[in-house]
Parts: sequence; structure tokens; C-alpha cells
Amino acid sequence: MVILGIDPGYAIVGYGVVISDGRRHAAVDYGVIETPKTDRFPVRLAHIAKQLSDLIDRCRPDAIAIEELFFHTNKTTVIMVAEARGVILYVAESKGIPLYEYTPLQIKQSLTGYGRAVKTQMQEMVKGLLRLDKIPRPDDAADALAVALTHAQTNQRMGRYGI
Amino acid sequence: MVILGIDPGYAIVGYGVVISDGRRHAAVDYGVIETPKTDRFPVRLAHIAKQLSDLIDRCRPDAIAIEELFFHTNKTTVIMVAEARGVILYVAESKGIPLYEYTPLQIKQSLTGYGRAVKTQMQEMVKGLLRLDKIPRPDDAADALAVALTHAQTNQRMGRYGI
Repeated sequence: MVILGIDPGYAIVGYGVVISDGRRHAAVDYGVIETPKTDRFPVRLAHIAKQLSDLIDRCRPDAIAIEELFFHTNKTTVIMVAEARGVILYVAESKGIPLYEYTPLQIKQSLTGYGRAVKTQMQEMVKGLLRLDKIPRPDDAADALAVALTHAQTNQRMGRYGI
Repeated sequence: MVILGIDPGYAIVGYGVVISDGRRHAAVDYGVIETPKTDRFPVRLAHIAKQLSDLIDRCRPDAIAIEELFFHTNKTTVIMVAEARGVILYVAESKGIPLYEYTPLQIKQSLTGYGRAVKTQMQEMVKGLLRLDKIPRPDDAADALAVALTHAQTNQRMGRYGI
């Protein structure tokens, strides 16, 4: 199956497309959608919607996995990230792709078996699981691959399906 | 000009359509978009997008005025409200309708001249300015009319336009 992982944001949305048979995984594509600071906020949201829609049409994922956002994420930007995340959920729903949400804790535990793993440990696991030569850049793309891998591995453990 | 005011939410979105010549105002329509609790969250977002899109097509507003959301709104639901608000901003932008945001303080000051006005004072002002027989119900619709009136009055003071 093909899984599109998303690291939500309004300035940078990370994405990572992973193909998985439930045991082995490979990166198909990864990168970021960036929105210009100079654009009005609703224009930035529309830009994210358009780019994400094109990405979904291109990679035709069987599932979309996205990181959950929490109120205790103590940043003043959390409202704007949530607004962008709402648009992302809406686009995924409009395309009829099943959506799965994972908490940062679930992602860390799934990849490293340890809920307090630091960013570099996570990135090394992403690199290892996908047999990449180097850590994917930027961080937002690596985070998106991590959530896609979490979905691949969660489903593996739960034995729901395989291709 | 016709102004669509919106009180954002994910379970209930209040809307109020006001026509104004800059001095006198009348309510054209008001009410709420409700989403079923039993639906998955992305389905609720899609429902809001569809209903709002239909409403915009129906009332053809010259401007959309929406209440701003703040992080210090200390509710655990703030993330979900922001996600719905993102979808609302996106739909407005897609329709090419100019969007204006007002803080709760701006809305209170515009309607009552007093930043600490309580809900009942606000509702009485909405009723009075629109020459309605009774206070509009539910509260979400009255709040939406309040933000539409704020836009009508703000533009009047700033002398930007009139119909």
C-alpha cells in the first residue's frame, strides 16, 4: 500500500510518500509545500490545498497519516497550524482517502520503541527503515516520512492488510 | 453592500447576512450550520465547507467578516475550532470574497462602545441596530450578526465605501 504522511504547518507542510508491504518500506517521494510569508493567510491556505490536492492525485495514496496537534503545544502559532491542518483534513476527506492520526508519542514509540526519543534518533530510524543514504531534509519531510512509517508499522502489527 | 458574518466553530457555525448602506443595516438571513456529532471530524469539516459554499452562492456577499480566535481562549476544543476556521477561511478565499477578521474586543467596542460588554448587551445592540422584534437565536447566529455589523460600522467610520 501507498501511504502519504503529513507534518502539518502553514508556512511549511512536510510530506512523505511511502510504499509498504507491511514489513519492508520504501520512500517514493518526500519534500515540503512552502507558502510565501508575503501572501495573505487565506491565500496561503488555498496554496496548501491546491498543492496537496495535486500531490494526492499524483501519488494516489491508499491512506493518509497525519500528526495530531495538541493544545499544550505551547506556541502562539498553534492556532494557525490548526487552521492549516483543518484545510489538510478537508482536502483528504474531499478526495475520499482514509485518514489516520497519530500522536507524537505514538510516532516515537512506533519508530524507536521509546516515547522520549529525540529528533536525531527519529531521523536515523527513518533513514534506516527506508534504507536511504542520508537523513531526509528538511526536518518537516523527515517528520512526514516518520508518520507514514508509523502507519505502515501500526497496520503491520495489527495485521489489517498488506499488498 | 452585503456582509456575511461568521462565528466559527466545528459543531455549530453561526452565520448572519447583513445589508448595509454604511449607516442603516438590515438582516437578510441568519442561522447556523450544524454538524452531526456522530460524523467523523473530517466529514464534519466537509459538511461545513459544502454548506458555507452554498450559503455564499446564495447570498453573494461583498465581504465576509469572521471572528478571530486566540490561543488564550483556554479551551481544549480550541484546536478543533481552529481547524474548522481554517476550512472557512479557505472556502471564502476560494470564492474570491474579501475576508476581514475582528477580535472579540473590536466587536464589543464597535457595537456598544465598551470593550467589556456582556453577551446580553451585545445581543440587545444586534436587535436594535437591525430593528428586529426579538434577539436572534441561537447565540451563534447573534454573534455572527454582531461581527457582520462590526464590519458595516468599521467601514462606515473609515469611510471606505457605501452602496
